[in-house]
Amino acid sequence: MARRTGRRPGNPDTREAILDAARAAFAERGFDAASIRAIAAAAQVDPALVHHYFGSKDQLFLAAMRAPVDPGELLPRVLAGDRDGVGERLVRTFLGVWDSPAGAAGVALLRSAVSNEWTARLLREFLVSQVLRTVLNRLDVDPAELPLRGSLVASQMIGLAMMRHVIRLEPVASAAPETLVAAVGPTVQRYLTGDLAEVLAG
Amino acid sequence: MARRTGRRPGNPDTREAILDAARAAFAERGFDAASIRAIAAAAQVDPALVHHYFGSKDQLFLAAMRAPVDPGELLPRVLAGDRDGVGERLVRTFLGVWDSPAGAAGVALLRSAVSNEWTARLLREFLVSQVLRTVLNRLDVDPAELPLRGSLVASQMIGLAMMRHVIRLEPVASAAPETLVAAVGPTVQRYLTGDLAEVLAG
Repeated sequence: MARRTGRRPGNPDTREAILDAARAAFAERGFDAASIRAIAAAAQVDPALVHHYFGSKDQLFLAAMRAPVDPGELLPRVLAGDRDGVGERLVRTFLGVWDSPAGAAGVALLRSAVSNEWTARLLREFLVSQVLRTVLNRLDVDPAELPLRGSLVASQMIGLAMMRHVIRLEPVASAAPETLVAAVGPTVQRYLTGDLAEVLAG
Repeated sequence: MARRTGRRPGNPDTREAILDAARAAFAERGFDAASIRAIAAAAQVDPALVHHYFGSKDQLFLAAMRAPVDPGELLPRVLAGDRDGVGERLVRTFLGVWDSPAGAAGVALLRSAVSNEWTARLLREFLVSQVLRTVLNRLDVDPAELPLRGSLVASQMIGLAMMRHVIRLEPVASAAPETLVAAVGPTVQRYLTGDLAEVLAG
């Protein structure tokens, strides 16, 4: 009459074991070096089960991060259209997410990243592997400049989220999104595609 | 033989009582509306004692925030020199503080502000009353634009500190300060003195 206690498909414990193993692997090794095979081994399940539950490595990562949105769905909108407008479109999309109900999860993630080195690592991997690389790879800039451009964009975007949703400094805290798109869009555009020769020579 | 237990000059309890009352007043009422008189009353001491211990209201505020540096001492360096270089000088000075031993206190303050609404309010008051207002008042910009300019500057600076010292995203995390001055200085300069007519009309 005893029920099986082992892990099997559909068992929430199995899901959680995979997510725990994924968080550890992504934080320790980074997104690129972490493998589904190693995560499955750590969770004591078959790799096929990881794929069955979560699909791709990207999807597993988003689930492990408890990411409230999938950048893979949002970024095509940012990338469609002229190259000179990508800064404004990135800020507009970013504000749209943070001003939506998903924003609360964003604030929670930011809070956790600030107090917990592990979450900070996951957030770093998220920014690079799910957002910045995707955007920058489409913009035809010197590959050697990608990391600096990406981290500069992240500095302005995270700072904007901090001021609007955490520190709540006015008027940024309650400004109309389009005001911030007009104010911050050119900054992000310069970091993405502007001439940083002087910066990189320095 | 019993020692007096009442508060008196030099008593660390008195100092702490004043600082507690100051934190509450600055967070609740804001820097401008909080008065030394009300803080003294809340701490059950004479206002003269507050002045004796802490000097000015600015100094009391910095002590209450446990601010690792006094912007009043650093900002003259930022403000000396040409108007077109103030963005770079502000970033250079900011990085100098965060890269120094004082940076650890800055990270602690940021951590606390992210998890604690009270510290967030104090940080907000600090940014506005001790840094942004001082800088912007010297730059001859339309007073109506000061709050937006100030909060945009704060968004980029706090984001830079987050990426360099908390999230630690490379290469911003370990870039030479002058690389970041060249990259971020123009952003801050535009927020401080650039034409935001289009932004403000939006």
